[in-house]
Order: sequence, then structure tokens, then C-alpha cells
Amino acid sequence: MARQVDVADLVDRARRQEPRAVARLISLVEDASPQLREVAAALAPLTGRAQVVGLTGPPGVGKSTTTSALVSALRAAGKRVGVLAVDPSSPFSGGALLGDRIRMQDHATDPGVFIRSMATRGHLGGLSWATPQALRVLDAAGFDVVLIETVGVGQSEVDVVGLADTTLVLLAPGMGDGIQAAKAGILEIADVFVVNKADRDGADTTARELKYMISLGRREIRGASWRQPIVKTVASRGEGVDEVITAIDHHRDWTRAHGEWHDRRAARARTEIEAIAVAAVRTRLGDLHGGDAIDALAKRVMTGDLDPYTAADALVDGI
Amino acid sequence: MARQVDVADLVDRARRQEPRAVARLISLVEDASPQLREVAAALAPLTGRAQVVGLTGPPGVGKSTTTSALVSALRAAGKRVGVLAVDPSSPFSGGALLGDRIRMQDHATDPGVFIRSMATRGHLGGLSWATPQALRVLDAAGFDVVLIETVGVGQSEVDVVGLADTTLVLLAPGMGDGIQAAKAGILEIADVFVVNKADRDGADTTARELKYMISLGRREIRGASWRQPIVKTVASRGEGVDEVITAIDHHRDWTRAHGEWHDRRAARARTEIEAIAVAAVRTRLGDLHGGDAIDALAKRVMTGDLDPYTAADALVDGI
Repeated sequence: MARQVDVADLVDRARRQEPRAVARLISLVEDASPQLREVAAALAPLTGRAQVVGLTGPPGVGKSTTTSALVSALRAAGKRVGVLAVDPSSPFSGGALLGDRIRMQDHATDPGVFIRSMATRGHLGGLSWATPQALRVLDAAGFDVVLIETVGVGQSEVDVVGLADTTLVLLAPGMGDGIQAAKAGILEIADVFVVNKADRDGADTTARELKYMISLGRREIRGASWRQPIVKTVASRGEGVDEVITAIDHHRDWTRAHGEWHDRRAARARTEIEAIAVAAVRTRLGDLHGGDAIDALAKRVMTGDLDPYTAADALVDGI
Repeated sequence: MARQVDVADLVDRARRQEPRAVARLISLVEDASPQLREVAAALAPLTGRAQVVGLTGPPGVGKSTTTSALVSALRAAGKRVGVLAVDPSSPFSGGALLGDRIRMQDHATDPGVFIRSMATRGHLGGLSWATPQALRVLDAAGFDVVLIETVGVGQSEVDVVGLADTTLVLLAPGMGDGIQAAKAGILEIADVFVVNKADRDGADTTARELKYMISLGRREIRGASWRQPIVKTVASRGEGVDEVITAIDHHRDWTRAHGEWHDRRAARARTEIEAIAVAAVRTRLGDLHGGDAIDALAKRVMTGDLDPYTAADALVDGI
């Protein structure tokens, strides 16, 4: 039997900025520990205060560098900052991410910063289930801002961005065609555009193209319209980073004034509840998976005696 | 109300190699048409015959070129060939895939070839749900071989490879570090390795590194061991492609002799049933999503009055 954890004590220590307590709580939710529900119940009354910022964009635009620069700037303003870096679980992902993460080690010894890589490994729904719980831990532990950095590839990463109050989309010069091809998706999820590596050729062109796209795709929310700002940065030198933080805060103020802040948080809570409910049902199906019922159904599907929909109906009826 | 489709007639025409009938059937399963179950029931008795080959690998190794070359070789051998090209739905995917697909148009006028792009767009589980159904359509329509090509990034693509009787993993010279970093994942899913672009520098090194990795990670199945072959190709000139087909057929014969062919197909049927069951439950939750119950729960989660697990319990109890 696994050792019982004193959850109340762990939460207290996390709130007193003990990184190991924070890490332990995240592990408890990530690994779906038997004490998960106890942890969730202890965290709930302490949540809702953290400002959640999503950060995404195609590979090579400098997401980790920008995250690191944002952390430095927020720390300088006295904020406690949590970072959830969402890694894809591709067997082909290579070592690039690891190298990027090393830059974040500037903050490794700062108790006001907590950094955690969230693996998307595991089954479908794993990511959308574990990341919000880790976010709850950081929120409850008293981090003022939580940055969620994703690699910007795939639906699950886009889902994670759905956790954010404000989403930054990073681009870099020389990606013009890519921007055109992807414009619908980018316009949908970006609240603030950051053109990083702005000291390179083509930064003005990229910003101009973005501006044109924004003019075509302006979002209307409750009759008012948030004008997505474009901020140019050279994150490796910290240039433009304060302007990014100003843009994030403007967006927060705007969404609060227009009811969107509340709507997003309500949508997030609905999605979170639904994801947990689906995972719970999946676990029950998985329990059947080991049993004879599904084996018998699978055999009939294999031989063409039964179609998989009729088999699934039988399985759901069996829960 | 949507027009009713004569499913039996459509299946007949698909089996007489009418591409439009095949396309219509796939659309019916992909769009979760009201007639989906009728289609599934009509297809079931006709399935189980197609040889299913998965093809994956990192970007830039020449997956589409290799797929196209395999199609040509299989056609020369008198086989009907279906291709399911699984695209990621990333908002940042850019235009590269489109360009790759154009090469496949060599086969566009051949009624013995059917090519379909499967978007992974949509919600979690969309891919693992739609692709096996499209595979069933091609199988029932009498295609001898179905190639499933994925971009090799992310868990959902790996899941799709799980549909295959035989999985090819493509690599190209000059990716040494990537191979090392990714070796565990690659070794797990590959039945046959293809080193494409073998006319380039470093092909021998890549093959040698692979060979060494294979020697470390040999898979044991029922006491016997399938030795993953490494085939070198220059797919753009058709070189080595016949050897790939020979390797695929060897693997099929081996898995049949050792019971693994049956085990894989049984596992595939179980996974397919489970995916449909989860989707069905998700739909029921989604119906609640629009209702007051989940809104009330979400509000309590937002205010910290309730944790999301307790809320999810209440939701599941409500189904």
C-alpha cells in the first residue's frame, strides 16, 4: 500500500513557498493518486486567484526564451510565477525541447518561481485532464501568475490554451507563408500577438501581415471588440517584454470589463468537469477491457459478425 | 432533414470500384451521419480482408513520396490500394503537407487507388474514432492493401499506427541525434525500418545506428522474436520499394505464424469498440453540457465551493 500523505500539511507548506510541497501535490494529481480527491477538495477553496497566461506558437520562435524573460520581468514586479511547460509525447520529438528548457534554469534557485514540465504522454485526454489540475495546485499555492507554455502543435495543445485568461501567440520573422496558411487558427486563439526576434530582417513585414489579418478577422464579443495587439520583442535581450506584460494586463482588464473573463473561467470549469467525467467513464470501460465481455465483443467484431457500434452499445449498457 | 442514402446500393457501388461511392461512405462515417450505424452494419460482414500498413516518421523523411512509390509497386502487382493520410489539425501546420499530397496525384486517375486525407480536427478522440471507420469502408470496398500515413507527431498518430498489421517507420540520413533521443518510441512501434534518401551521405551511419538500437531493444513476442529489418530506399526513384513490400509481407507471414496477427486485430477491435463507447458517453455528457446541471456545477467550481472531481461525479451520476 502506498504511503498516506498528510494533504493539509502539504497544502500549508506549498502556500509557504516550499517547492517540494508544490511538486509533491502536482505529482499526486498527475499520477491520479488514490488521494487525488482529497487533494482536489483541499485545493478548491484556495483557487481562482492566479492570472493564467497561455503561450504558444510554432517551433523556433523562441517560446522558452520568451517565457523565461516574462518570468524575470514578473519577478522584478514582485509576482510569484508558476510555469507549466507542456511537452508533446511524440516518439520523434528529439532533444530540442530539453535544450530549450535549460534556459529556464536561470530561475531554478528562485523560490518565487516554480517550473514543471507536463508530459502529454499517455492516453487521449491525459493532457486536458492533468494540466488543469496542476494549474489548480499552483493557483492554490499562491502563485500570482501561471504561464502555460505549449509547443503549439496539435489539438491537445490548443485545448490547454483554453485554460488561459490570456493567450499569447508567438511568431518570428520569415514565416510569412506559414502565417497565411494558419491564419484562421491563430486568429481564433490569440489574444496578444508577439513577434519575437524582432531584430531580424522581416520583422516589420510579419507585423504588417499580422495587422492585415487581424483587420480581416476581428472578433466580436458582446458587441465590443478586443483589438489583438502586436508586440515586438527580442526576448533573449529582454526587449519588449514589459510591453508584453502591459498587453496581458490590458487584456485582463478588458475581459473583466466586458464579461469575457467570467465567461472564459466558466467555460474552463465546464470543460474541466467534463474531462474528469469522461476519464472516469473511460476508467470504468477500461475495467471492462480486462474482462471477458469486451473480449467476446471484439471477437465478434473481428469476424464481421457484429459492427463496432452495436458492440459499443452493449459495452456502455454494461457499465 | 438530410436526404436518406441507399446504403446497400452505395456499398455495392463501392465494391464495384466507384470512387465516389467510397468517398460518400467515408463521409458518412466521418461526419457521424444519422445513418452511421446502418453503414457500419452493412460494412461489418465485408471486412477483415485488407492488409493494413501504417507508415510514419519525422517530418522531411519522404513519407508521401514513399507512400506514392509503394502504391505504384502494389498496383504493378495487381493490388487495389487505399491510402488514408492523417493530417494534424494544428493551426500552425502551414502548407507543407498540401505540397506533399500533390505528388500523390500521380494516382488520382487510377480507379484501383483511393486516397483520402483524414483531418484530426475536432475534439479529442476524433481521430481514433474516424480513422478506423474509414479503414472499414476501404476494407469492405475490397481494397487489398490500405496504407495509413501519419505525420508521426503526437499520441493520436501513434494510436492510428495501432490500427496497422505492419508499421513502417521511415528515417532519413543525418538525423542521428534525433534517433538516439527517440529510440524507445521508435523501437516500440516499428515493424520495419525504412531508411529513405539512401543516396545521401550518412545513410550507412543511420542504418548502422538503427541496427545497434535494434540489437539493444529486441522485442520478445510469445518466446519468438521478430527481427525488425532495415530497408534502404530512394523512394523518389522507386529504388528499394519492392524490398519494402517483401519486408511487409514477411512480417505479415511471421505474425500469422506466431499468433501476433490475430492478437493485434483483436486488440484493434477492442480499442475501436472502446473509442466508440467513450465517444457515445461524451455525447451524452455534451447533451448535459447545454443544460443547466453542468452550468450550476461549473459555477460552484469557479467559486471554489466545489472541487471538479466531486462535480464530475455528480455529472456522471446524471447520465
